[in-house]
Amino acid sequence: MATFERVLRAHDHIRKAISQTPILTSSTIDGMVGCKVLFKSEHLQKTGSFKARGAIHNIKIVTGRGTKGVVTHSSGNHGQAVAWAARAAGVKCTVVVPEGNTRMQIEAMEGYGARIVRCDNNPARRVSTCNGLAEREGLDFIDPFISIDIIEGQGSLGIELKEQLSSVPPLFVAVGGGGLAAGLSLALPLTPLYLAEPEGKHLTRQLEGNQSMEQLSLPTIADGIRTRLIGEENKKTLKTHKEIHTLAVSESEIRESLLLIWTRLKQHVEPTAAVPLAALIKVLLLSKKSPLPFKEVVLCGGNVDPSFTP
Amino acid sequence: MATFERVLRAHDHIRKAISQTPILTSSTIDGMVGCKVLFKSEHLQKTGSFKARGAIHNIKIVTGRGTKGVVTHSSGNHGQAVAWAARAAGVKCTVVVPEGNTRMQIEAMEGYGARIVRCDNNPARRVSTCNGLAEREGLDFIDPFISIDIIEGQGSLGIELKEQLSSVPPLFVAVGGGGLAAGLSLALPLTPLYLAEPEGKHLTRQLEGNQSMEQLSLPTIADGIRTRLIGEENKKTLKTHKEIHTLAVSESEIRESLLLIWTRLKQHVEPTAAVPLAALIKVLLLSKKSPLPFKEVVLCGGNVDPSFTP
Repeated sequence: MATFERVLRAHDHIRKAISQTPILTSSTIDGMVGCKVLFKSEHLQKTGSFKARGAIHNIKIVTGRGTKGVVTHSSGNHGQAVAWAARAAGVKCTVVVPEGNTRMQIEAMEGYGARIVRCDNNPARRVSTCNGLAEREGLDFIDPFISIDIIEGQGSLGIELKEQLSSVPPLFVAVGGGGLAAGLSLALPLTPLYLAEPEGKHLTRQLEGNQSMEQLSLPTIADGIRTRLIGEENKKTLKTHKEIHTLAVSESEIRESLLLIWTRLKQHVEPTAAVPLAALIKVLLLSKKSPLPFKEVVLCGGNVDPSFTP
Repeated sequence: MATFERVLRAHDHIRKAISQTPILTSSTIDGMVGCKVLFKSEHLQKTGSFKARGAIHNIKIVTGRGTKGVVTHSSGNHGQAVAWAARAAGVKCTVVVPEGNTRMQIEAMEGYGARIVRCDNNPARRVSTCNGLAEREGLDFIDPFISIDIIEGQGSLGIELKEQLSSVPPLFVAVGGGGLAAGLSLALPLTPLYLAEPEGKHLTRQLEGNQSMEQLSLPTIADGIRTRLIGEENKKTLKTHKEIHTLAVSESEIRESLLLIWTRLKQHVEPTAAVPLAALIKVLLLSKKSPLPFKEVVLCGGNVDPSFTP
């Protein structure tokens, strides 16, 4: 299982390969929302998302073991990140991409030298295609949802926050497969964590784990977190944290927050990056007070198709 | 006439009221373009554009003279900037806005407490409406194109660049009425200046001043610089600079550069902010070499309607 000490090691392992991303603020958004909001800008990370962290950590580990090449599946940011990290390490990379993906994402992966293999847009099919390629060609399968190396790599974001801030305020983060949230929960054991999710994901029920749920692709504009189920390892890790809240936001709440970030912070983030701000606004509306003066939201990525409008 | 010393004084006058905006870079854009590009991020300036500089300088001056209120005309960024500066100084502000303006810009001006007066989308009519209001109500008319205070305020951007960089590389800037370009030409007398313009503006002919030209609104997506003619004072100032180049770029070149800035720099700038990058790419293509390793482009503003796609 992933641990705090292993996240610290991952942070040291990758810090020279990635960017330390800035923390941005907007006094206009502060005024509208009613508290001071810090935006951790992972859309300015290498490859345009935090996924570069877990990817470079994982690639360094399999390279140390003498890999013959890697294969992963992704609808976007994770694929870009693994392709980038593999190129940096001189390792061959294959990305299994489900049908329906945007041209921009595929061009970016190809730009980093990856081979693209198409498959149906179906979670089970993505995994089986990877397993097939791994077996036939002797590749290492970098599973985006269950790799402990990925959790630890994403967790480096939390260690970086501790280096940047004297105290890390309550943290809002969007949850897809749960790797980033799990990593942050290890890195920041004392920081309240608000897990922001699109409607239909039912994170609380998933964390309670009382019933099995179907793996669906959620119909949300937050295309980085359409996967409904969180990974088992991520779930186990999250359950060890002392203060987790879950918050579902609607499509219109995501759109409104995205407009705020585009027009006020002037940052061209992807829709998923607006999900934590939507959750923060909801918390403040529900509580009608700001119990602490600062909150922090993670802008997870900036890979938005230019033809997209909120 | 505006002078270097007066620009320096303007810089000291306004420095506490405005933001020192960051200089951003993208290794991907550097690789694509073939030289190291520095992006001066005035879209992150107060009110979302460099116009905050000239506006706050001008408002401070008329406030010092005991103004009863100010009036200006603007299709967007200048109006926001004057409304913001007036509110900061506790001065009443009226903005004459031509028909056809985006709702977002008007809401921002109203958000800063300005009174909005509509008029036809016609350059002469904008000025006459301002003059009428100034006379009837005893207001100071802040002319966006011929005020020396505006030139000097915008010029503070050049002084700030000198503070941020050990040496300011050749500078690319978009030209509408010419106030920013004129201010920069005073602030940076030794820096080669590349004036980037949409097709149909004929800047070289205007600077040579051999023939009068009609004031048209240019049909460009760069909506911050649709005005065709540069101001007389700006023209006089620009002609004193030792190395001025002019470069016309096409609509498709502007679109391509805007896509690069959105997708690679992840900054949600307005189309006008992409004009200098388009000009830089053109220069590099034409010269087929990069005579100096660094170039700097000004990202002039970030007030883009969210429904706009390149």
